[in-house]
Amino acid sequence: MRKNITPQTLQRLPMYLNYLKSLPKNSGNVNISATAIAEALNLNDVQVRKDLASVSRGGKPKVGYVTEELIGDIGQFLGFENKTGVIIAGVGNLGRALLAFDGFGDYGLNILAGFDENKDIAGTEINGKPVFSVSELKAFCKKENVKIGIITVPESAAQEICDIMVSSGITAIMNFAPVHLIAPESVTIKNENMAISLAMLSRNFQ
Amino acid sequence: MRKNITPQTLQRLPMYLNYLKSLPKNSGNVNISATAIAEALNLNDVQVRKDLASVSRGGKPKVGYVTEELIGDIGQFLGFENKTGVIIAGVGNLGRALLAFDGFGDYGLNILAGFDENKDIAGTEINGKPVFSVSELKAFCKKENVKIGIITVPESAAQEICDIMVSSGITAIMNFAPVHLIAPESVTIKNENMAISLAMLSRNFQ
Repeated sequence: MRKNITPQTLQRLPMYLNYLKSLPKNSGNVNISATAIAEALNLNDVQVRKDLASVSRGGKPKVGYVTEELIGDIGQFLGFENKTGVIIAGVGNLGRALLAFDGFGDYGLNILAGFDENKDIAGTEINGKPVFSVSELKAFCKKENVKIGIITVPESAAQEICDIMVSSGITAIMNFAPVHLIAPESVTIKNENMAISLAMLSRNFQ
Repeated sequence: MRKNITPQTLQRLPMYLNYLKSLPKNSGNVNISATAIAEALNLNDVQVRKDLASVSRGGKPKVGYVTEELIGDIGQFLGFENKTGVIIAGVGNLGRALLAFDGFGDYGLNILAGFDENKDIAGTEINGKPVFSVSELKAFCKKENVKIGIITVPESAAQEICDIMVSSGITAIMNFAPVHLIAPESVTIKNENMAISLAMLSRNFQ
């Protein structure tokens, strides 16, 4: 299986999975072709063939895939058997929105908890996810072996939270604070700037 | 000036602008070189030269840019003189986070108002931005000539809001709802899926 998958392919995989799971199991059709999936989902069949080939080796010419095997391969690729734990630091509006968003599970990600300095927020739950004090972040990450963190604290607190995450063993950070974070080279930082994203959209359509 | 600018260049422009504006005006140095900017901001000077050349024609070999002209060119490119108005439909956690985020102005964007179906929210203000009822969206967009909308409503309401935006004259939509929206070809839709973004980060670092 290739690990180098495009965001576009990754985005379509849960769609394939939902469709395959929706098929009647006792219909006699144990096989399914990329063409049939493409038609059902109104997608380009070359694209579907490529997408499936990137996550499963089960496709055979003229026969297609064994449906149950393909379901298994996509699920395995998406990480359903062993979801990746993620924590969020900063439970303001954006942190809450991410804790409440149910779409992460489709991609093998599991938001485990939120962390906030505010004592009124620590101890609460959002969408069934616990919110703890930032002072508990390190112990939690060590115990749960968390490697991915999301930073949604204000700009002024971002570097300090980044340092805490790094010292907690986190090696990949998604940063929503509009600040350039400094971290060891072994830590991957992805800056998410919604203003840039919107500005690009605005320029492209003008 | 080229309109085809990369997100990376766009992201750096406000940094250049802040630096240039921070320079003392009566220091006698009316010119500045890309190299000097690169050194001050700890960036690659080839990159800085390219970035500046994409927004200003004022650069001269060995002389650099006239600082005030460069400030003007970057500001004009970012759209400071005539900011682009944007509205947000759906004032839940994510909508609130976007209304409260002050970073849009750096990219020539101005979030004008939020719209929500909830009568308890309509009539309030967030970060000084008014929140109106969805029933007022069309009249507002026509009056203010708004062409860009952000959808942060739940999945079930997203298509209806999209239809309302299209009928209101909006031609570019940033969609945070995890649903494929149907709109005329003349309307640009950009889907923002934070789960995809996080899943890509998670896979790339593993």
